[in-house]
Amino acid sequence: RVDGERLWDSLMQMARIGPGIAGGNNRQTLTDADAEGRALFRQWAEDAGMTMGLDRMGSMFLRHEGSEPDLDPVYIGSHLDTQPTGGKYDGVLGVLAGLEVIRSIRDMGLTTRRPIVVVNWTNEEGARFAPAMLASGVFAGIHDEDYANSRTDAEGRRFGDELDRIGWRGDETPGDRKIHAMFEYHIEQGPILEAEGRQIGVVTHGQGLWWLQVTLTGKDAHTGSTPMSMRVNAGLGMARIIEAVHRIAMDHQPDAVGAVGQANVWPNSRNVIPGRAVFTIDFRSPHLDKLTSMRARLEDEAPKIAAELGLGIEIEPVGHFDPVAFDPGLVAKVRDAAERLGYSHMDIVSGAGHDACWINRVAPTVMIMCPCVGGLSHNEAEEISPEWAAAGADVLLHAVLDAAEV
Amino acid sequence: RVDGERLWDSLMQMARIGPGIAGGNNRQTLTDADAEGRALFRQWAEDAGMTMGLDRMGSMFLRHEGSEPDLDPVYIGSHLDTQPTGGKYDGVLGVLAGLEVIRSIRDMGLTTRRPIVVVNWTNEEGARFAPAMLASGVFAGIHDEDYANSRTDAEGRRFGDELDRIGWRGDETPGDRKIHAMFEYHIEQGPILEAEGRQIGVVTHGQGLWWLQVTLTGKDAHTGSTPMSMRVNAGLGMARIIEAVHRIAMDHQPDAVGAVGQANVWPNSRNVIPGRAVFTIDFRSPHLDKLTSMRARLEDEAPKIAAELGLGIEIEPVGHFDPVAFDPGLVAKVRDAAERLGYSHMDIVSGAGHDACWINRVAPTVMIMCPCVGGLSHNEAEEISPEWAAAGADVLLHAVLDAAEV
Ligand SMILES: NC(=O)NCCC(=O)O
Ligand SMILES: NC(=O)NCCC(=O)O
Repeated sequence: RVDGERLWDSLMQMARIGPGIAGGNNRQTLTDADAEGRALFRQWAEDAGMTMGLDRMGSMFLRHEGSEPDLDPVYIGSHLDTQPTGGKYDGVLGVLAGLEVIRSIRDMGLTTRRPIVVVNWTNEEGARFAPAMLASGVFAGIHDEDYANSRTDAEGRRFGDELDRIGWRGDETPGDRKIHAMFEYHIEQGPILEAEGRQIGVVTHGQGLWWLQVTLTGKDAHTGSTPMSMRVNAGLGMARIIEAVHRIAMDHQPDAVGAVGQANVWPNSRNVIPGRAVFTIDFRSPHLDKLTSMRARLEDEAPKIAAELGLGIEIEPVGHFDPVAFDPGLVAKVRDAAERLGYSHMDIVSGAGHDACWINRVAPTVMIMCPCVGGLSHNEAEEISPEWAAAGADVLLHAVLDAAEV
Repeated sequence: RVDGERLWDSLMQMARIGPGIAGGNNRQTLTDADAEGRALFRQWAEDAGMTMGLDRMGSMFLRHEGSEPDLDPVYIGSHLDTQPTGGKYDGVLGVLAGLEVIRSIRDMGLTTRRPIVVVNWTNEEGARFAPAMLASGVFAGIHDEDYANSRTDAEGRRFGDELDRIGWRGDETPGDRKIHAMFEYHIEQGPILEAEGRQIGVVTHGQGLWWLQVTLTGKDAHTGSTPMSMRVNAGLGMARIIEAVHRIAMDHQPDAVGAVGQANVWPNSRNVIPGRAVFTIDFRSPHLDKLTSMRARLEDEAPKIAAELGLGIEIEPVGHFDPVAFDPGLVAKVRDAAERLGYSHMDIVSGAGHDACWINRVAPTVMIMCPCVGGLSHNEAEEISPEWAAAGADVLLHAVLDAAEV
């Protein structure tokens, strides 16, 4: 078993970097706080005898040597970046549990044949730079580096410039690593495990996603003196499309969700009819047909809504992955480990996207989940218990020892 | 007649201060650009022999002496502040036409019995600090000074602090002036005069307004892993209320308008269901019963929309004025002046709020309007012709000479 107290202690220390405003974290990717979090993780890993590799996307690879260094390593990876108003566990748990696995292996004096590499993937959240899971996507060959480097945040700063600025760009070519297997341990971010009273989620599948950025172009005009008949109100168009997104998701129940998370109008002044609105739609489903159908309906309905109001419309996909089926052999290893350790468990589908979803394209991959209170995530009030955190880390330890061949 | 070329030239010089991004202006109240615009106006006025008074709201009173200095002066007032993406004429025309009236009176060697005071009222737009027409409202005793000083902008900066910062707070007690009559000359900001082919709008009435700021409180949560049934989506609530505002305004046609100009969600991240939305509703009508009825319907419907989604709701009035009837005697003077000068004219209702609407509460007041291209205002593309500008200024000159007793 891992040292649950040490794991919890590391989580709490990391949470001091990039504190939020309500008990959580704002350690968005490529900020100064991100750089500070990276340095702390590196320090801890080096203290545990690991050595760092760094790729050109800034993804960090901390290697614990195996007795047969030439064998393809087993990877444990997740992310240290957070949402602007994020929790202390989303992503961080997976990276620090990986570190705890190595610390425990050393404490127990065990040696694995295969090396074990703990990864911090850059920009998983996609909050500052869309799309999410950017660096693991580049690693898996989904995006090219130029695309990634040219992504901009809300202030127009480029991903590549910000990575250089914080000093965490490495030399390694992304994807230039052989992976025997990758494990990602993550909080569920949904309510199912808690509701079902299970300690461990054995993740068999992941939902697919479409992110569609919509730009509506109307005409800024005075809210008082412009007759209703002469208005070209981009804010009203946005409202109608937000409602359409909800209706489309409801029409695809069960196993489908949809919402608009980001919404902005211009010039955003009380007495100006918005002349422009930009917002992002997030559709997800574990079923490819539903995912495709939701996008198709939106692309049919939104232009009609725009046309009725005289608005120009552009719909740009800014994120996408198909539903994922994780590696059945690794899924079995995770289930067996939970079983052996006596933890209650169930098979589960990941509602969120994860770096594991991309890495699964290029190597056998699986995920382990622990519950979170009220299913709440992407919220500073995100909470888990030290016992939940440790149980998943135990399962991770055993499954990794199995894959890395003790 | 005024010197139309000189008036136009002054408009173009003022427009160089706080340039916009698309040919208009961003000279929002209490910014450095506002301070610069104020200094230019003061300089011009002093060059024309006027002397400045300044009140504690930063409203500027440039006085041209009359032959009987103890008589209550005639006022000409509007505003130099603009929307964030505003035009070059909204407000500015009224102040600089006032200056042009004085310049013309001097050129013609005329003397009036009453002094004439040209006013720049602080924060007419209400874009940076709600409500609009703040300083004229304080002058008229509608708001008290503490309320005004404590208004905050989107960055949380206080009106009072910003006024001190730009160095334009005076000693005069707002409202401590006797006004014989006030004239405000303004662009129409709507399409009627142009459509009817009239040069002059004789403004008999002004629409009333309610600004209602709505705050919806839901729960930030992950867009992917939160089941539809567990969402408390403040963005969806905002969308439904934006639609309700539109429906309510349409149900009160004609002579009623409604829209949401300012709309923000938090944390405004692509994969976070908005936990909070704040937006402002703008309802207007020249009929008090319609205005009251629109607000009442919103206050009935919005809480139901919120309750259905499980959202908390707060509705705070952040701006209000009742419909206005301008002084019949001054209205007649404006109509007579237009008639005498041979300009085509019509009676018109102001769609926008103006400083004149507040001053009308404490002194006989009237407005003069000129057309603007396509009725467009609160848009950098706002446009008028030099001929339109001059025609209204001629009417202003004649009506003012009449009121100030040549
Ligand atoms: N796990 C997680 O929140 N990832 C961010 C990408 C997503 O929105 O699913
Ligand atoms: N004239 C003008 O645009 N004033 C601002 C107040 C309003 O929105 O009516």
